Amino acid sequence: MSNTPHTSHKFDAELDALRAHVMEMGDLVENQIRMAIEGLSNGDVVLMERVIDDDHLVNVLQSSIDEGCTQILACRQPAASDLRMVMMVLKTIADLESIGDEAKKIARMVKLLAEENTLRLPCYKETRHSAKMALEMVRNSLDAFARLDLALAAQVVRQDEQVDAEFHSILRHLITFMMEDPRTISAALEIVSVAKAIERIGDHAKNIAEYVFYMVKGLDLRHVTVEEIEHQARS
Amino acid sequence: MSNTPHTSHKFDAELDALRAHVMEMGDLVENQIRMAIEGLSNGDVVLMERVIDDDHLVNVLQSSIDEGCTQILACRQPAASDLRMVMMVLKTIADLESIGDEAKKIARMVKLLAEENTLRLPCYKETRHSAKMALEMVRNSLDAFARLDLALAAQVVRQDEQVDAEFHSILRHLITFMMEDPRTISAALEIVSVAKAIERIGDHAKNIAEYVFYMVKGLDLRHVTVEEIEHQARS
Repeated sequence: MSNTPHTSHKFDAELDALRAHVMEMGDLVENQIRMAIEGLSNGDVVLMERVIDDDHLVNVLQSSIDEGCTQILACRQPAASDLRMVMMVLKTIADLESIGDEAKKIARMVKLLAEENTLRLPCYKETRHSAKMALEMVRNSLDAFARLDLALAAQVVRQDEQVDAEFHSILRHLITFMMEDPRTISAALEIVSVAKAIERIGDHAKNIAEYVFYMVKGLDLRHVTVEEIEHQARS
Repeated sequence: MSNTPHTSHKFDAELDALRAHVMEMGDLVENQIRMAIEGLSNGDVVLMERVIDDDHLVNVLQSSIDEGCTQILACRQPAASDLRMVMMVLKTIADLESIGDEAKKIARMVKLLAEENTLRLPCYKETRHSAKMALEMVRNSLDAFARLDLALAAQVVRQDEQVDAEFHSILRHLITFMMEDPRTISAALEIVSVAKAIERIGDHAKNIAEYVFYMVKGLDLRHVTVEEIEHQARS
């Protein structure tokens, strides 16, 4: 059933609409991350309020896509690759919602740091850099989703290792800093939270990339090594 | 279709088996948390290795239940409450898998702390207490899942507020401690990670409780207030 055109053009249109909504949700959370990165540069509190408010839009969109998937499962009873597509959409939007939550957490921390006037602590440059990498991972994972591109999905999995390594480097740097000047501990812990949220955004982007493998190859690669994933992308 | 007996006894048996597997997965992660709490008391490194190893079993079980859901969707084309049940199972096992991950993180941190001989730092008592509360939340959320018990599900949502409050109290306590003795910063940050992992376990249990509302009432309560959830449980 999966490789023949659907008898129902309406069903095709429904699946297209589902994918389009996922991309719309992806655009929203990408934009949240982008604004959060801007906040890490300039401490723009009003912009951070917008990141926080946008979380509501992300949640509404998730509920609506979730409902759309349930409708399709109930009315269209999809099989084979259509069913896998719906399953992939359900999992992907759960991760996108979590990414939105993490962006909101970053925005809240940036607000705190800006209000405490502690935006001149070290590690901002590294933190911004790692946030840009996480943003690129999200963008790549959504591109891999849209084009069912396994090579790009494998790249996201690889990038996650870099983001994890950067998190640990930021953490070590901040520990040294706190030990040298204990008055900075409170603010430094807020930066740790920001770095942790970025690392988690990377994890969720990696999850999305792994669902693409499930979609294309029917393989569950959530708990295997990067090398195995790269091998599967080539084969 | 949902309120009449299934024409197929085999389908009933499949749904029962699905629920039983979710409870089995729940038992596994509950046990991981229980062992992690024990490790927080006695620094038992061998036991922590077991928590870490058990994560693999949790992942295998998730993949297998995931596959079971896909099979049911493809072959049985469930409607109404059966479909909602399958959707609830899919979401629940994703959270259970995350709970297992957090338990693994706690076990890794306990190992580190035990090896560094820093298990006598402050906040262990509070951290264990908050871990016990999170464990109770997980147990209650799984009971609410098994019995479709809305009152119990609402209680889990309420408990999450307590676990969050405890996390912030532990954090404040540790910050004071680090400022008084900067040599403890590194170890104290590991306890922060443990406390954070516990707080996240609470969040995932709360998610599971909210899916019960979706199952029973068809309501998506993921982004509403505790008061609204309690109102829905009574109505």
